[in-house]
Amino acid sequence: MRVKNYFFLFVVIILSIIVLNVKITSAKSYNWKLVSVWPAGLKNIIAADYKFAETVESMSNGELKIKVFAAGELCKPTEVLNMVSSGTVEMGVDWPNYWSGKDTAFDLLGSNSVTFSAEDYLIWDYQHGGIDLAQTLYGEYGCIWFPHYMSHMESGIRSNKPINSINDLKGMKIRLGGLLPGEILKELGATPMTISVAELYEALRRGVLDGAEFSTPSNDQDFHFDEITKYWCTPGWHQTSSQHGVLVNKKSWDSLPEHLKNIIKNAAMATHMWSYTKLAYDDAKATEFFKSKGINVTKLSDEDLTKIENIKNKLQVKHSEANPMYKKILRSQIDYLNGIADYREAIVPFSFGRNPKNLPQIQ
Amino acid sequence: MRVKNYFFLFVVIILSIIVLNVKITSAKSYNWKLVSVWPAGLKNIIAADYKFAETVESMSNGELKIKVFAAGELCKPTEVLNMVSSGTVEMGVDWPNYWSGKDTAFDLLGSNSVTFSAEDYLIWDYQHGGIDLAQTLYGEYGCIWFPHYMSHMESGIRSNKPINSINDLKGMKIRLGGLLPGEILKELGATPMTISVAELYEALRRGVLDGAEFSTPSNDQDFHFDEITKYWCTPGWHQTSSQHGVLVNKKSWDSLPEHLKNIIKNAAMATHMWSYTKLAYDDAKATEFFKSKGINVTKLSDEDLTKIENIKNKLQVKHSEANPMYKKILRSQIDYLNGIADYREAIVPFSFGRNPKNLPQIQ
Repeated sequence: MRVKNYFFLFVVIILSIIVLNVKITSAKSYNWKLVSVWPAGLKNIIAADYKFAETVESMSNGELKIKVFAAGELCKPTEVLNMVSSGTVEMGVDWPNYWSGKDTAFDLLGSNSVTFSAEDYLIWDYQHGGIDLAQTLYGEYGCIWFPHYMSHMESGIRSNKPINSINDLKGMKIRLGGLLPGEILKELGATPMTISVAELYEALRRGVLDGAEFSTPSNDQDFHFDEITKYWCTPGWHQTSSQHGVLVNKKSWDSLPEHLKNIIKNAAMATHMWSYTKLAYDDAKATEFFKSKGINVTKLSDEDLTKIENIKNKLQVKHSEANPMYKKILRSQIDYLNGIADYREAIVPFSFGRNPKNLPQIQ
Repeated sequence: MRVKNYFFLFVVIILSIIVLNVKITSAKSYNWKLVSVWPAGLKNIIAADYKFAETVESMSNGELKIKVFAAGELCKPTEVLNMVSSGTVEMGVDWPNYWSGKDTAFDLLGSNSVTFSAEDYLIWDYQHGGIDLAQTLYGEYGCIWFPHYMSHMESGIRSNKPINSINDLKGMKIRLGGLLPGEILKELGATPMTISVAELYEALRRGVLDGAEFSTPSNDQDFHFDEITKYWCTPGWHQTSSQHGVLVNKKSWDSLPEHLKNIIKNAAMATHMWSYTKLAYDDAKATEFFKSKGINVTKLSDEDLTKIENIKNKLQVKHSEANPMYKKILRSQIDYLNGIADYREAIVPFSFGRNPKNLPQIQ
């Protein structure tokens, strides 16, 4: 080929770019795996994981594709943090409180018993540095984390004996999720039981358990609690809201171009809004369902709630003294609660959540 | 050039695509204009418009750039719907209630006095077909619409005379935004005044007005209400929440590839979450500020609120009879309120907003 022809080739390419308004871009596309802690059967919960993955793919025009694996498909739920942390997969979905065995501070990111409403988490996450603190904690495990699922108050305890006050809990064998709820239950004179979700239905049916909570009303409906229990004790003080998130391996994250990072961040935020509204909506329908099945709803008094709150505060002081990271996150949540209190009161009766009667006394 | 050389040229291009992992894509990029109804001076409010535009640009890798024009820069606030409807610009930002002069149904999309909390709008928007109804109404003006800004309860009436009950409103000259609030004010025996935001400060200072509302506490702080009023009457029943949105010319929308449509939708949704949390957070700080300035806060009784609610219901029935679209949207909001009522009650004290005592009686 002669020099003239090389020149011709060059001109053709340049003219193509100008005239046809095309550009040569990096076409590097990403096919990522996401392992969820949620089994496929919990369709209302895992829906947020699929929604998030679809949102990322649709906005990135397929540049980043995320394949969701339900619990058990690639690994056990308990292995999700390790799988992402080690880079075996690029992404995961968790309820941070599951990792409180590794670090008690995780217990504050997904729910704060008798304290944080769904709205409190949202405001704390996005405006009071909540997500930044989560990044610090997950950073120790080589991960980035974004909340993407938010439920309002969980149902509360389902049982076949009415629970009208905390005195009724004495001597009962009860299953509650999370670190703090079990500790509170013990202080209230009940026996906290560890039962896997898979065994929960039979344990309640056969009286191995006297009472149990699972999740919010719509998830409880899928669980068929109406077939095996007659009473439902509100409020769900053990989880006055519940937040899940997407975790990303830090090296995988760093390998992404800036616009895909922005797509992940905003897809999580939009999914957060979607799930927050969807849960409330579905839970309202499920509340109707349980009423139609003749389930009796009881409610603990404000006085009882304050007693639970005081026990919780004492336990949180203990955890703060044992773990500086726990103290750091708890202090941030206390600062938020102090800052929002007067405003929350001012906008009654169009307000949200509840100002605590007492807060943990930490230095 | 010989045939052989054409073949060579072809091979070079194909090899480039394979080896260098590049692809030739349509590089059509979009430079759009957005006209806001908000002036640059209302920095807390217009912040959501800039945030939305930045989010779109950052996710699209610059493929869709949106230049925001504050009110007055390209057109008057009153011209925004026309500008987008006619395609003079591709996008706008509005508070839908501004267009109630064109169609009263718009008055239900941005606030529903004494009725919808911020959370009610969010759930109705995303789960009960609220956004679909907005598309129908805006569709009549050749536009698509997505909510992107959400405030909680607005402050309420600022005055130099204490307002302890609705009886105190009799004979007062008051400025309230929106169609319905003015009508309610008249029924309460006050004189609703139309005063532009630009003249509001002086009108209050010189006693041309006896009382006025502007927006939420943080926006009221920017307005320096503490310099010209001593009393603040809560709750802000006229706007128990306030929602703004992004409007897009339908032809411009149709010209976009699918992934950019998804980016706009999700950028609006993420901005909705951001502004919803930011307003609450900033309003909490502003509530502290007003308290530190010695402003006296009063609160109307539940009985007074119910009276206002009954007046509002009567007016809404009247508007429903006059406008089928108003009736259609109102009926959807009533259906939502009926569906959520038991659930909202069940999750007390970790609940949100308020179940109305009475709802409009429409067929």
